[in-house]
Amino acid sequence: MPEQPAGSRPTLEAVAARAGVSRATASRVVNGGAGVRRPLADKVREAVEELGYVPNHAARSLVTRQSGAVAVIIAEPEFRIFSDPFFEQQVRGISRELTAHDSQLVLLWVEGPGDYERIARYLGGGHVDGALAFSLHDDDGLPALVHRSKVPTVYGGRPGAGAAAVPYVDCDNRGGARTAVRHLVGLGRERVAHIAGPRDQTSAIDRADGYHDVLFDADPALTARGDFTVDSGARAMAQLLERAPDLDAVFAANDLMAAGALRVLRERGRRVPQDVAVVGFDDMVTVAAAADPPLTTVRQDVEGMGRLMVRLLMRVLNDGGDRGPGAPASVIMPTELVRRASA
Amino acid sequence: MPEQPAGSRPTLEAVAARAGVSRATASRVVNGGAGVRRPLADKVREAVEELGYVPNHAARSLVTRQSGAVAVIIAEPEFRIFSDPFFEQQVRGISRELTAHDSQLVLLWVEGPGDYERIARYLGGGHVDGALAFSLHDDDGLPALVHRSKVPTVYGGRPGAGAAAVPYVDCDNRGGARTAVRHLVGLGRERVAHIAGPRDQTSAIDRADGYHDVLFDADPALTARGDFTVDSGARAMAQLLERAPDLDAVFAANDLMAAGALRVLRERGRRVPQDVAVVGFDDMVTVAAAADPPLTTVRQDVEGMGRLMVRLLMRVLNDGGDRGPGAPASVIMPTELVRRASA
Repeated sequence: MPEQPAGSRPTLEAVAARAGVSRATASRVVNGGAGVRRPLADKVREAVEELGYVPNHAARSLVTRQSGAVAVIIAEPEFRIFSDPFFEQQVRGISRELTAHDSQLVLLWVEGPGDYERIARYLGGGHVDGALAFSLHDDDGLPALVHRSKVPTVYGGRPGAGAAAVPYVDCDNRGGARTAVRHLVGLGRERVAHIAGPRDQTSAIDRADGYHDVLFDADPALTARGDFTVDSGARAMAQLLERAPDLDAVFAANDLMAAGALRVLRERGRRVPQDVAVVGFDDMVTVAAAADPPLTTVRQDVEGMGRLMVRLLMRVLNDGGDRGPGAPASVIMPTELVRRASA
Repeated sequence: MPEQPAGSRPTLEAVAARAGVSRATASRVVNGGAGVRRPLADKVREAVEELGYVPNHAARSLVTRQSGAVAVIIAEPEFRIFSDPFFEQQVRGISRELTAHDSQLVLLWVEGPGDYERIARYLGGGHVDGALAFSLHDDDGLPALVHRSKVPTVYGGRPGAGAAAVPYVDCDNRGGARTAVRHLVGLGRERVAHIAGPRDQTSAIDRADGYHDVLFDADPALTARGDFTVDSGARAMAQLLERAPDLDAVFAANDLMAAGALRVLRERGRRVPQDVAVVGFDDMVTVAAAADPPLTTVRQDVEGMGRLMVRLLMRVLNDGGDRGPGAPASVIMPTELVRRASA
């Protein structure tokens, strides 16, 4: 799809021409679609999307930046957002920093792919000055939609390979994982298993890569996969114990999955850390410190990352909202091992 | 403050006149405020607020309703929203129903009074077609701000006495509380205590009224107050045991406070229900059914109330967004007692 040259904005006439309809019809569709037959309206909407057309009033609001609002988009369904303390911490950091900039946070999330078009319409409508998006998955249409909406955006976590080059804030997932696994090896553990996160999230991929950096000849039977939830960690732990009953350590790609693993190890009578040492990732206070036994884990400053995302976005907005060569670079934040009783 | 006559909209000229500035100055402030000295800008903003002025582009978007978005405003800080399953259930119902209407949910919350003005600006900016607001407190400036923004709004829970007449959805808090207390009395309990919710929320007031409807001569030492959180329920229970060690039942105004009460009763060696019977309110699945022992409670259909709020709002929007005599009435939903082991 051809990119618009920088500085030019597609007109309503261009939309009408591309859709093969009159300007009046295109205008009616753009202003709500009343009285336009569905097939014609669909053609206009396609043209709007393809050209990245932004209606005038929205364009004006983009120029004056008077919406005073920033969208936070979490690419997860509502039940994950409310049950995973990771999101709360990230949103907290973002919320505090946006308040400091007198910017209104509006939170959006994604129940499924059907939500993307609606979110894109909202973003393209000039109702927010910028967006912060996180928990992206590889097959997410979100980065492409956000890019087309021309709303300046900063990502939390490195977007997948398909995404356009955009500024993001991430932690050193791979380095942190290496530290965790080296710690287990340093304790003399010889059969270190890995509970990996979702195959379509870069954080999970990078943490698995860190595990393999240290244990490059690891037995494939020692890896099982979860989806970053407690229950998936428990299921993965049960699989691992079946496949490799002699395992003596587990590195879980996040604390919630480590908590699920602890539960199964306890049920099966394996003592932690004597029989099996466990290390998590994230250092979610409500999870890691409260676990039984308390969890050794890799800390990332999730709240700080949220704050930093806002600061990067504000820099983009103050530089005129362009994503040109002067756009701020991405930031990778360090991690540190927090030692508690589980390893 | 004089109401605008229905159908007329305050002009920028009126704002300028009220603020005692030129139209150009008023326009600059309304469009972001660049280059206008603070005292003048403040005067214009005051005039905007007093007159309920809505900028043109926002007015246009209100007319065409092309934002396609609805704001959900929770008058609680972020940590409450993410830790109280009540909000998740309500948001879930709202989210599903808005999706069915192809409307984008944008979630806003209130960390403190300093957030109101910003939220009002956002609402007044035409970025949403309507709003759903819940967890209001008596001293909330929110209803007044929302009213002035002219964004059609439906409330979750009856707003306090000071608020303008607005459609709301609530459950029968008082009737449900009566049922709970009658159940305890019916079990032969003679010293029924009440853990009340915040003094500034109508749900808490109505539930306390229901308690007093049945026990109109209740010993004041048998009431303690919490803030709807687990820890506050634990603190209230400890107070009650100190003041009235002979109590043999507790009606807590929500499940989270009942869970806190159960914890303290267990710590103090009081058996539930043998020594002290406990009833909660809400029937939050993750709390009531998971409690030890499982909690007898008053069920309200929180998700259904969320859905109903959306349907009422859509009716207001389809009727032209006016809050005239044809506006839909409020809805009070029934409650039912769910009997489990705690009473």
